[in-house]
Amino acid sequence: MADIKYEIKEEIGVLSESPKGWKKELNLISWNGREPKYDLRDWSPEHEKMGKGVTLTREELKKLREVLKNMNLD
Amino acid sequence: MADIKYEIKEEIGVLSESPKGWKKELNLISWNGREPKYDLRDWSPEHEKMGKGVTLTREELKKLREVLKNMNLD
Repeated sequence: MADIKYEIKEEIGVLSESPKGWKKELNLISWNGREPKYDLRDWSPEHEKMGKGVTLTREELKKLREVLKNMNLD
Repeated sequence: MADIKYEIKEEIGVLSESPKGWKKELNLISWNGREPKYDLRDWSPEHEKMGKGVTLTREELKKLREVLKNMNLD
């Protein structure tokens, strides 16, 4: 991971926080100077370390919103 | 990855499909026989290979739904 450059363009939302302060976050991130993508992953406090995650396009996020809207999560 | 056992309990939704047939999917998956978790990742056709992804609890998914509801994705 050491050679990957990233820039968090927008912190959109925090989904949870672990007792050690890691957070599961939805952000808009530019990887290696490329066009920013939506990104869902775990981050250590202050964003020094990252866990595995997925990047998502705007279209995928729209589809995800639709899927979630139809789920019974209560 | 070879030693990880998983069972897809429910295929909830497909967010996209690449030209090679890989799909970004939201599933409910039991890893190594444990309690199933929601899981967002890329899969090859027929689920033989998986890409990196995130697992999510029901609470995280609810929070994600809330975050997405407030986003302007159009």
